Amino acid sequence: MSDTGPTLETFPNPHPGRDYLIDHYASEFTSLCPITGQPDFGKLRVQYVPADKCVELRSLKLYLHGFRSTGAFYEDVTNRILDDLVASMEPKWLRVSTTWNVRGGIRSVITAEHGKRPPDLGR
Amino acid sequence: MSDTGPTLETFPNPHPGRDYLIDHYASEFTSLCPITGQPDFGKLRVQYVPADKCVELRSLKLYLHGFRSTGAFYEDVTNRILDDLVASMEPKWLRVSTTWNVRGGIRSVITAEHGKRPPDLGR
Amino acid sequence: MSDTGPTLETFPNPHPGRDYLIDHYASEFTSLCPITGQPDFGKLRVQYVPADKCVELRSLKLYLHGFRSTGAFYEDVTNRILDDLVASMEPKWLRVSTTWNVRGGIRSVITAEHGKRPPDLGR
Amino acid sequence: MSDTGPTLETFPNPHPGRDYLIDHYASEFTSLCPITGQPDFGKLRVQYVPADKCVELRSLKLYLHGFRSTGAFYEDVTNRILDDLVASMEPKWLRVSTTWNVRGGIRSVITAEHGKRPPDLGR
Amino acid sequence: MSDTGPTLETFPNPHPGRDYLIDHYASEFTSLCPITGQPDFGKLRVQYVPADKCVELRSLKLYLHGFRSTGAFYEDVTNRILDDLVASMEPKWLRVSTTWNVRGGIRSVITAEHGKRPPDLGR
Amino acid sequence: MSDTGPTLETFPNPHPGRDYLIDHYASEFTSLCPITGQPDFGKLRVQYVPADKCVELRSLKLYLHGFRSTGAFYEDVTNRILDDLVASMEPKWLRVSTTWNVRGGIRSVITAEHGKRPPDLGR
Amino acid sequence: MSDTGPTLETFPNPHPGRDYLIDHYASEFTSLCPITGQPDFGKLRVQYVPADKCVELRSLKLYLHGFRSTGAFYEDVTNRILDDLVASMEPKWLRVSTTWNVRGGIRSVITAEHGKRPPDLGR
Amino acid sequence: MSDTGPTLETFPNPHPGRDYLIDHYASEFTSLCPITGQPDFGKLRVQYVPADKCVELRSLKLYLHGFRSTGAFYEDVTNRILDDLVASMEPKWLRVSTTWNVRGGIRSVITAEHGKRPPDLGR
Amino acid sequence: MSDTGPTLETFPNPHPGRDYLIDHYASEFTSLCPITGQPDFGKLRVQYVPADKCVELRSLKLYLHGFRSTGAFYEDVTNRILDDLVASMEPKWLRVSTTWNVRGGIRSVITAEHGKRPPDLGR
Amino acid sequence: MSDTGPTLETFPNPHPGRDYLIDHYASEFTSLCPITGQPDFGKLRVQYVPADKCVELRSLKLYLHGFRSTGAFYEDVTNRILDDLVASMEPKWLRVSTTWNVRGGIRSVITAEHGKRPPDLGR
Repeated sequence: MSDTGPTLETFPNPHPGRDYLIDHYASEFTSLCPITGQPDFGKLRVQYVPADKCVELRSLKLYLHGFRSTGAFYEDVTNRILDDLVASMEPKWLRVSTTWNVRGGIRSVITAEHGKRPPDLGR
Repeated sequence: MSDTGPTLETFPNPHPGRDYLIDHYASEFTSLCPITGQPDFGKLRVQYVPADKCVELRSLKLYLHGFRSTGAFYEDVTNRILDDLVASMEPKWLRVSTTWNVRGGIRSVITAEHGKRPPDLGR
Repeated sequence: MSDTGPTLETFPNPHPGRDYLIDHYASEFTSLCPITGQPDFGKLRVQYVPADKCVELRSLKLYLHGFRSTGAFYEDVTNRILDDLVASMEPKWLRVSTTWNVRGGIRSVITAEHGKRPPDLGR
Repeated sequence: MSDTGPTLETFPNPHPGRDYLIDHYASEFTSLCPITGQPDFGKLRVQYVPADKCVELRSLKLYLHGFRSTGAFYEDVTNRILDDLVASMEPKWLRVSTTWNVRGGIRSVITAEHGKRPPDLGR
Repeated sequence: MSDTGPTLETFPNPHPGRDYLIDHYASEFTSLCPITGQPDFGKLRVQYVPADKCVELRSLKLYLHGFRSTGAFYEDVTNRILDDLVASMEPKWLRVSTTWNVRGGIRSVITAEHGKRPPDLGR
Repeated sequence: MSDTGPTLETFPNPHPGRDYLIDHYASEFTSLCPITGQPDFGKLRVQYVPADKCVELRSLKLYLHGFRSTGAFYEDVTNRILDDLVASMEPKWLRVSTTWNVRGGIRSVITAEHGKRPPDLGR
Repeated sequence: MSDTGPTLETFPNPHPGRDYLIDHYASEFTSLCPITGQPDFGKLRVQYVPADKCVELRSLKLYLHGFRSTGAFYEDVTNRILDDLVASMEPKWLRVSTTWNVRGGIRSVITAEHGKRPPDLGR
Repeated sequence: MSDTGPTLETFPNPHPGRDYLIDHYASEFTSLCPITGQPDFGKLRVQYVPADKCVELRSLKLYLHGFRSTGAFYEDVTNRILDDLVASMEPKWLRVSTTWNVRGGIRSVITAEHGKRPPDLGR
Repeated sequence: MSDTGPTLETFPNPHPGRDYLIDHYASEFTSLCPITGQPDFGKLRVQYVPADKCVELRSLKLYLHGFRSTGAFYEDVTNRILDDLVASMEPKWLRVSTTWNVRGGIRSVITAEHGKRPPDLGR
Repeated sequence: MSDTGPTLETFPNPHPGRDYLIDHYASEFTSLCPITGQPDFGKLRVQYVPADKCVELRSLKLYLHGFRSTGAFYEDVTNRILDDLVASMEPKWLRVSTTWNVRGGIRSVITAEHGKRPPDLGR
């Protein structure tokens, strides 16, 4: 999908001299179960400390919509989104967390991160 | 029960090169009180950092259903599930937490873990 | 199940001269899916205006536990419980409402009642 | 208990020319189970339209504390409190609702009333 | 207090040709207990359908602050505010509801109204 | 879509002699905006009183997934689902309510129904 | 403002043969206090049963943004929006409700409607 | 009370080789105010890491009921329960927290602990 | 005010040999704005680890009521209460936190503390 | 905007000898999207430990209203407010956090800070 889906676009960090935290919650995420082909629904949170680039929100929305017809396991989706975001922004620190609706009575959350969170930043 | 109940199945960790967090909440859990034989109801949470294997969700669901006719104390159920999950996945870190519905005006939560949580992972 | 499960026991209504409302919420209910054999979980609410008899709570609890190994559709379980409660208590009015945990992204509530609720009683 | 417990005291309705609603929630109520002798805990709500008298709050509190050592079924407690309040105040309308903590996975609410609620009063 | 406290000021109803609902919640209300002299705290809600006049919000705030040093029973405060608002605005319908913080484990709500609520207005 | 999407399947009402209420909440619904082609997300509630047939839950789930690639206005989607459900079940009464996620700061709910709800049924 | 602000645009009701309910919540509304010139913030809800026309959501959003520099009392804003929506759509029934953030410890809600709500439609 | 009330009973820790957390919430606790003799109501939480013994839940319930006729200050009750639990179980770590209902507009929480919580256990 | 208001009374710490946490929430606090003279409303939380003395709750309530006619800035009130409590109890650690109702769309919280919180005490 | 908008006014810290925390939540914030010119709505939180000066609340409110006609990206607004507050107060530590309403299904939070938070202050 990194090859074929919508491209993540960035804009220059307007305050590159200061470490600060950006947190985006996307409450509308859907992909397909790689086994049954049935839709999975969830939410996605991206937290990061930008270096030189910030992800542009509209391109993030379109990028996430690109999973609408993609079949992938929870663990895989989460790590792929992390990889794509890191590749496009090269941030100082970035965490992706996906929360998946109940399936078989079980709700799941997968969290992966890149880099080391600056101490004392945010809570 | 480790001998006779449904088997926990696993699949290869799709991103073994990165420490990340997997969190499953099962809100439908029931076993039997070992003294009265009456049903106990609760919830179960499994958090772990995978090494080479991840637990497959459908087999986890069936494994948990295997306690439906099992009589065991809260403390024992929790530690046995921890042992079974550790044996099947050999994760880097794993925590099991069970939350039990009110009995005699008292609600209980039992939490056991295996291994050491990687620092700076999750919150 | 009406034939083989635990019997619903009753005690004499201590205030038969007054129409009043009794409302029991049982938050621990589980039966089996008649197609897959997998467990279903839900909650059950019984509201009624007693005539000469009230249902005894411990026998209600045991009666509900009797569904633990019963395979039945939501709609059928609800109506059968209504029938059993009406048969045991012959109340002036009775309503059974079952709320079922999410399956396939869908949560269901089934509500059936017997008799006519006295006007101006309750809210 | 109507004979031996604390007396319900009243004061003259300061606005007897107007029908209006008084609503008291007592969140600290405890009595004893008449079968096991174990404590029951719950909440109590009294709603009424006064005629010539209003119940004094401190005496209501003490009256409710009088049930601390009383063994009685939910249904009976509710109707007895209704009778005692009606006898002391002779209100135009009065409703007593008791909500009992979970026992055996079941929460109960009992509601009884006296007289007819004036139409269009409150909601 | 009707004689000595701050005056309720009004402004002309800007849409007198239509029955509509105005609802003000004042979450900061305090008076004194007429027996102990200790402060009582609560909230106040005024709902009305204006005729020719609407109450001005700043004067309502100051009017309510006028109770800060007033000793009065809940039932009395509620009816007096109702009388004062009706006298100042002569509305088609008006309801006052006061909600009082817990005293002796009991929370109270007093509701009084003037006139008849137009059918089908609001919910 | 009525022609091409998944078929709504039904099963015989197990208790046709009694009017009762069935309520399904589907929290995973997505279609496409007919103007922009961008995904819309929402929830759907179906309430009905069955006549001879009940809708089968798995086929309802698949039917709803059929909108995943359908472009339609909120008002249209709601009425079309109502029409399809009525055609498949011929219920005594049926209501469809769709709740749509915020777009441009506005959240929308559309509610349409067929037939007349039996009085005194449900709340 | 009816003269100068953005125009409310409509589209033809796709199901004119059936009375149904449309409910839009706009959580981002701001105008100016006509006395102090300071910003007021609130929320707005429009509920209606369409006749031949439905309001288009993007034009509703822009229309509401038109109040950003408008000074008007709560009561006046609410009735003016009602008038504008009725003029543009000529609906069977329409209700506007505005909820205003706390000022001086008081939160306000103003509700006005046009026409008569069809019985048994929604709740 | 340590001398005369119900005895705290224990059972052998089923997994003594592993440090794990046990958490009991008792939402039904009542004692008497040592000054006024009036009832106090609250909640109690016991968290501990067992050594060789675990407290048996039914005996904990009866032990807590033993305070029903005991007059004691919040601070004293909390520390006495801590002492009794430590004496009966000799746990590795134990914390008692009591939460008391509002008195005079003030809600109180008292927390005392024994031993040192093992690092990295629970959150 | 330290000179003229009600005195904070204390009682001997019943368990001086153990560091433990006391937490009082007073949800009824009001003072006056030093500029406008209008009432301010808020909540106050006092957390402390006692040394030899504990504050008596009734005197704390009366002390807080002493601010009813006091004009002071948020920041000043908070620090003065901290000073008074420290002077009366000489605790090992004490924190005062005040939360003020919305003024001009802004809600404020001021937190000051004295001494060093013992490590590992409370959470 | 730092040049042309309302000035942030300060008053002398009334307790400069003690490090303490001030926390202001402004729930009414609106600016313009720099690309579309459409309004953005959000909330803003300012936390700081004052040195010699505290920000005056009314000037903070007016300063924030100054963004009503300002077009700026989330990241930029947040850092500019941080810069302005630091310039006016020279605090020991200050954090600005902005929370933005959903756009395209995504909610965002931006957090920037200046200085180092004193250890053990607040939570």
